[in-house]
Amino acid sequence: MHIYRFLLLNLILMMTTLISSGQAHAQQPAPYYRIAEIVVDSTQLTAYNAALKEQMNTAIRLEPGVLAYTALADKSNPAHITIFETYASIAAYQAHIQTAHFKKYKAAVEGMVQSLTLRDMNAIGIVSK
Amino acid sequence: MHIYRFLLLNLILMMTTLISSGQAHAQQPAPYYRIAEIVVDSTQLTAYNAALKEQMNTAIRLEPGVLAYTALADKSNPAHITIFETYASIAAYQAHIQTAHFKKYKAAVEGMVQSLTLRDMNAIGIVSK
Repeated sequence: MHIYRFLLLNLILMMTTLISSGQAHAQQPAPYYRIAEIVVDSTQLTAYNAALKEQMNTAIRLEPGVLAYTALADKSNPAHITIFETYASIAAYQAHIQTAHFKKYKAAVEGMVQSLTLRDMNAIGIVSK
Repeated sequence: MHIYRFLLLNLILMMTTLISSGQAHAQQPAPYYRIAEIVVDSTQLTAYNAALKEQMNTAIRLEPGVLAYTALADKSNPAHITIFETYASIAAYQAHIQTAHFKKYKAAVEGMVQSLTLRDMNAIGIVSK
């Protein structure tokens, strides 16, 4: 009878609306922030910095989940390097370390890195012009 | 005589060109990068973070020479805070520490900060999406 068809159509419409609005409001995963502190053999600094920049430029170009890298060296000791890393999510970071360009970087700098400290971070605030 | 007027006009033209091209090519001072590492009294962390964010938001809004702040806390120890600071130049930083909003922040957090380490940095590379 018409009433059943009407109710069925309404039910389908309701469920479609619920499903699509659920997808539209699906939460973006929070960005994943990290700081890497690296001490490099000072006699290999030029090669290290070149390998680092190649990795950074390739990753930012090829991987949607790699959002930013800021690599800095202490003015008083250029072998002390601090890298601020921003990924779209922890999953994006995990995908990143499987890439060919990251593995190439790790292999290239293996004999150059004297120490590496990785710190997972929460953002207090990020502002820029 | 005409020749002297001609030579004088040429001289003026040459000097004007030299001066204006010198100004056009005047070097932008390099950005000044710093990392501040702060240990905060963990019982005052909420107040500290609020004061920090207020300073950051005010500085980025009011000071042309303040280019960016990224303030992060260690996930494993939120009282350990790392701030990556970018100023247009060392002069811009020196102007910044004379501002009312910076002095207000310093006075507010004086009893909260247990240690402060400031590191002047050189940029190896900065990339972002």
